[in-house]
Formats: sequence, structure tokens, C-alpha cells
Amino acid sequence: METELKVTVLGAGHGGLTFTGDLILRGYDVTLYELPRFIANIKPILDRGGFEIHGHDGLGKPLPKTGFAKISKVTTNIKEAVEGVNVILVNVPAFAHKEFAEKLSPELEKGQIVTLNPGSQFGAIEFGNVLKKKGVDIINEVILCETMSNLYATRKFLFRNENLYRVWVMATKAMLPIAAFPSINTEKAMKVLQGLYHNRLILASNVLETSIYSMNAYGHPLFMILGAIDMEAGEEPEWSTFDERKKGSQALNNVRTAVRKERDALLNAMNLEVKEFRLYPKGWWDPPYKNEFLPPPYEIGGNKLKMRYLTEDVPYGLVPVASISRMLKVPTPTIDTIIQLASIINQTDYWKEGRTVEKLGINGLNIEQLHRYANKGKL
Amino acid sequence: METELKVTVLGAGHGGLTFTGDLILRGYDVTLYELPRFIANIKPILDRGGFEIHGHDGLGKPLPKTGFAKISKVTTNIKEAVEGVNVILVNVPAFAHKEFAEKLSPELEKGQIVTLNPGSQFGAIEFGNVLKKKGVDIINEVILCETMSNLYATRKFLFRNENLYRVWVMATKAMLPIAAFPSINTEKAMKVLQGLYHNRLILASNVLETSIYSMNAYGHPLFMILGAIDMEAGEEPEWSTFDERKKGSQALNNVRTAVRKERDALLNAMNLEVKEFRLYPKGWWDPPYKNEFLPPPYEIGGNKLKMRYLTEDVPYGLVPVASISRMLKVPTPTIDTIIQLASIINQTDYWKEGRTVEKLGINGLNIEQLHRYANKGKL
Repeated sequence: METELKVTVLGAGHGGLTFTGDLILRGYDVTLYELPRFIANIKPILDRGGFEIHGHDGLGKPLPKTGFAKISKVTTNIKEAVEGVNVILVNVPAFAHKEFAEKLSPELEKGQIVTLNPGSQFGAIEFGNVLKKKGVDIINEVILCETMSNLYATRKFLFRNENLYRVWVMATKAMLPIAAFPSINTEKAMKVLQGLYHNRLILASNVLETSIYSMNAYGHPLFMILGAIDMEAGEEPEWSTFDERKKGSQALNNVRTAVRKERDALLNAMNLEVKEFRLYPKGWWDPPYKNEFLPPPYEIGGNKLKMRYLTEDVPYGLVPVASISRMLKVPTPTIDTIIQLASIINQTDYWKEGRTVEKLGINGLNIEQLHRYANKGKL
Repeated sequence: METELKVTVLGAGHGGLTFTGDLILRGYDVTLYELPRFIANIKPILDRGGFEIHGHDGLGKPLPKTGFAKISKVTTNIKEAVEGVNVILVNVPAFAHKEFAEKLSPELEKGQIVTLNPGSQFGAIEFGNVLKKKGVDIINEVILCETMSNLYATRKFLFRNENLYRVWVMATKAMLPIAAFPSINTEKAMKVLQGLYHNRLILASNVLETSIYSMNAYGHPLFMILGAIDMEAGEEPEWSTFDERKKGSQALNNVRTAVRKERDALLNAMNLEVKEFRLYPKGWWDPPYKNEFLPPPYEIGGNKLKMRYLTEDVPYGLVPVASISRMLKVPTPTIDTIIQLASIINQTDYWKEGRTVEKLGINGLNIEQLHRYANKGKL
């Protein structure tokens, strides 16, 4: 029985809390870990002994189990979080991958499976490089995976009067490509993980595929740029009237199409199939919690444009895509444009901050070598 | 007396109508010309025998003369418009410069002064090239000038119930650089034109200076890109709440600063002084006509982003700036970005459409040659 699996979820954000609640209600033994500096985020969970989860399975039905998810194992101690578990689900922004890899490496045990949900662009390679450097054998002892996206389109709301989190799953993805790094371990991992993921996992060729298809980079930054003035003026990018304005924008559509073409040219150059994933065949259910506190996607108290749609999706999304494209002589004029404007807008050199082929240790590799590295974990 | 001057205004848009009305009320003999295909634009003027003009002189006072400007000479016949006049004021979008140069060339008479209000970037050189090709001697017989900007920040409103145009001048610029092409003719032209321009003309070194300083390119396209979604959703860029949102935008400010730095690097490379023009030292007076018809800045019935802030200011503003910068090895990464995104958004290759050093016939010239050409009209 899969429910005998012991699972640790790292990160108590939207994605982490959702995974935690969904797994608990389905009978898994789950530990939730959050970084000590974010302990305030988990206070309501500790106070109440759990939180609620509601929402949709993405195939036209509610999630199989909803309601209050009782959890006793909530910790900010990484050793305690990881010891003796089978699966570690990493649900943190891409800019935190390196920190978590460093934290995890001394604690990992033989046979454990670590999955990045998602890896954004080339998260598993970056994570794997850190683990290898710290002496973890990701070929034979620990399995490291990344998914193409988060399993859930989801948000957590804090009901302040009740001091209670309610998670709302707008949709669970109908399919979710996954790959291990190296990919020789993918099938083994999938067998163990499939139940946790509502049997939605599908096999990706390798982490090159999950990474290049990782979606947020091709969406979020575009409307952040074309809607920058609007955002700053106080409209939030989620569940606001901005959503409606976005839908009607031909400008956004044209830029999205141009970016998509550049991505597809890269896929072609890398001998990866160009395909569409129908992630939400039955649509999307908006959250019913209009007046409750939704943790802002921007840095609290900070610049509204210094939020993950730019601070994560540009340096850990578009930059690695542009970097590997440049290496393979695939032009990315539109993607370059978004990186440049995002850098100016946030006065941050995202090229310098971001994941590049140099930092990933794959600079100068040809297509065959890239695939060999992704498949075997060595050259 | 300057009022003995006979003046023809080409173009009955915001700028052309304002110049016409202001000159008529100050006693000049003015003919207004519009292209036959835009005859509908001048119908209310023909019907009513004139139009009203109101607004500000930009130095804290109303315009010296305001009220109804009676005009009998309104024509769509270019020969009739130009014959026997002293000064021809060209008040048309930059994308129409070539068409007007071709129309004008067979009609121009010795001693006439033609001024582009403004030339946008390198309008006088483009216009001059056409005239020269058609056999007009712009060194000795006809004087061709461009101003750095329009003299007025102004709009025309159609009061539909009255079938009457009212022009509102928000501000008249406190100073306005002008240069002839070639600049050996600038002082002579200024003496004649100064009165027409409320004595606001100041001497620019040559058309390289008026062109590179021409302002619209460094403003309009930036907020069109960073506000694209907003624009399309129905907010117009003028006198709407968008103005307020723009003011508070740090993103826009950062992009504007980056673009300005690139412009200043070009000025430096070209041995042109970097300076600030205080065009509106006393501010700006918003129009009182909130509910009247303001001709939309976008193509009527068309895509709201296919309007002059992009269709004029990118190909006839940023493209020539980027093109000459490239020739002189001055990097313009931010300007390039705006050109690229504008091209994608409007599905138009603005690099291909726009004024480049190749089209202007100045490709390969060094700084000294550029100045010699601007100053003497030949190499």
C-alpha cells in the first residue's frame, strides 16, 4: 500500500501546504518542514493542529477527500524532518533550491526519493550538482526528480478571525511529466510516487524535457511586463480585474506566441518533441474566499514587481532557457527582451543572478552530451 | 512686420489646427491644407468658416488671443496651398513626411521656408533627401527646417452638437530648438519664423541635435509597452486614470532612465551637448472639455495599440536612434528591447519600416562627416 509511505513536504507555501493536506486526508504519514526564518507562516497550523483543504481534482470532481487535515509533525528542524522518510517533496521557489540542497545533503538516507515540485528550468541539475558535490550519490543511492509543474493550481488563504488556513485547489493537473536526474531512475521513482500524485504522473524523456517545458517562465513574466504600470498601481495579478484585462489582450497573445516559438525552436534543436500538454481539460474553479487574506505574491511590504513572477520566473526560467539557446545557437530575441526589461524594472541583473549553462556545469556540451548527462548523470 | 507673412499649414490634426488658429488670431494670413483623403476632418471648419482656440502660453498666462478663428482658405489642393506663401509649416506624423515631401517638391518656390513641426528623428534629412532628388535646391533656394518638438502641447475636440472644433492648448513650450538642414540656413530661417513661434525658438547646432533630442520617442513607446494590457482593456492613454497610474510607476521610471542613458551616450559619441530643456517651467493646464469628442490617438476602429505612440514613435523615433547608435557602436539594449516588443505586439517589423542610416543615406559616415552633412548639406 502506498499509504505506508512516509512523506516529508519541504515548504509551507501554496504548493507545499496543498500537498501536505491532500496527502494527510488520503492517509499518508506526512511531516511538514518550513525554514526557521519563516516560522510565522506555520504558526496558525501549529496553533490549530492542522488546516483545511478544499477544491478540485481537475477532472470534473472535487478532491477525493476534503476538510480539516490534522497534522502533528510540523518542524523547522531539517534532521527531524528527513529522518526515516521515504519521499521528500521539495515545494519551494526555484531561488531556494540551492539552499535546500545544501540543507538536505547531510541528512539524506539511502533509498530516499527527492522531488522538486517543480524544478522550474534545470532545478534538478542544479540541485543534483550540489548533492554530488556534498558526496550524495544520486545515481545509486538517492533518487532526485523534478516535475514539469506543480501538481496543483492552488492558493492558501489565512482566515484571520479563525487563525486558520484554508487551501483552495483550483485544479489538479490532469497529467504531470516527471523525470529523474539521471533519467535511468525515472521509472523506479514513478512507481513509488504515482499514488501521491493522484496517478497523474507521466514519463518525460529526461530533465531536459521537464525543464524546457516548465510553464511559468513563458507566462508570468510576459504579463508582468505588459501590465507593469497596472500592477504597480495597486491591482494584484491574481483574482483581480487584471485577469479579465489579460484575457482580451492581443499584445500579450502576440508576445506569448513569439516566446512559444522560440521555446519550440529550442526543443527542436535539442531533439525533443514539440507537444501540447492538456493540463486543465475540464477547466478551473475559482476560489470562493474573496475576502480572506491571500499571502501576496510580492515581497511583503516591498515593491509589487519584486515578486516571484519576475524574481523567480526570469532568473530561474527565462535566463536558463536563453542561456542554453545561446549555447546551441538558437535565437531568442523575444525572451532576451523580457529578461532585459525585467532586469531594468527591478534594477537587478537577472542574467547575472540566474541559472546559466556555466553555473549548471553544462557549458559547451553538444546535444548528444546534454542528453547523455541528463540520462546517465555523467558524461 | 511679421504679420505680413503668408503662411500655409499642412495637416489639420491637433498641431496643425492649433498653429492655424493661433496664427490667424494674431493677424497672419493663413492657408490650411489637408490631404484629400482626410477631407472629413476639415468638414466642420468649412461648414462653420473656422473654429475656436483656447489655452495657455506656457509662461503662466492664457494665449495672447483666443476665441473664434475665422478662416476662408482651407484646401485639399497642394498647388493652391503653397503658391505665393512665405512659410510652410508641416504638421503631420513622421510616417507622412515622405508623402508630403513628394507632394510639395514640384510646387516649392524660391525663398520659401518649410518647417517640420517636429521632424521626429531625422525628419529633415529624409524630407531634404526627397526634395533634392526632385531637383529642389535646399541649400540656396528653399530653406528646410525641423523643430525638436511641436510648439504646443495641444488637442482638438469636436463639439458634435455644434459641429465645431475647439482647440485646447495645454501649454506652449517655453523654448523650442530649431535647425535648418543644412544648418548654414538656420539663423536666416529663425529671423523669419521667430514671431510665428511666440519668440520661443532657440538655435540648435544642427538637425543632428534636434533629431536626437526629439522627445516623443523616449516617452510614449515606453508606457505603451508597460501599459499594453491596460490600454487594450479600454483605457485611453490620455486624460484617463492611466495618467495617474503612470505617474506612480517605478518600473516606467526605471525604463525611462535606462533609455535616457542610452540617448545621452549617443549624444556624447556625436559630440553633442547633453542638456535639459525646461519646456514647461510653469506646468500644464488640462483641457476643460471632458465630454467632447477627442479624435482617438489610435486608428479609428482599429487596434488600440496601432496608434502613433507606437506606429510613429518607434519606427521614426527609436529605430533611427538605435540605427545611428549601432553605426557608431553605442549600445542601446533597452531601446532595442522596446523596438522588438513593439514589433511583436503590432506584428509589424518596425526595424524594416523605420528610418535607418541606410535609408537616410548616412550609413558609414563618421562623426565629422555626419556634422559636415548636417551643416553644409553635402559631404
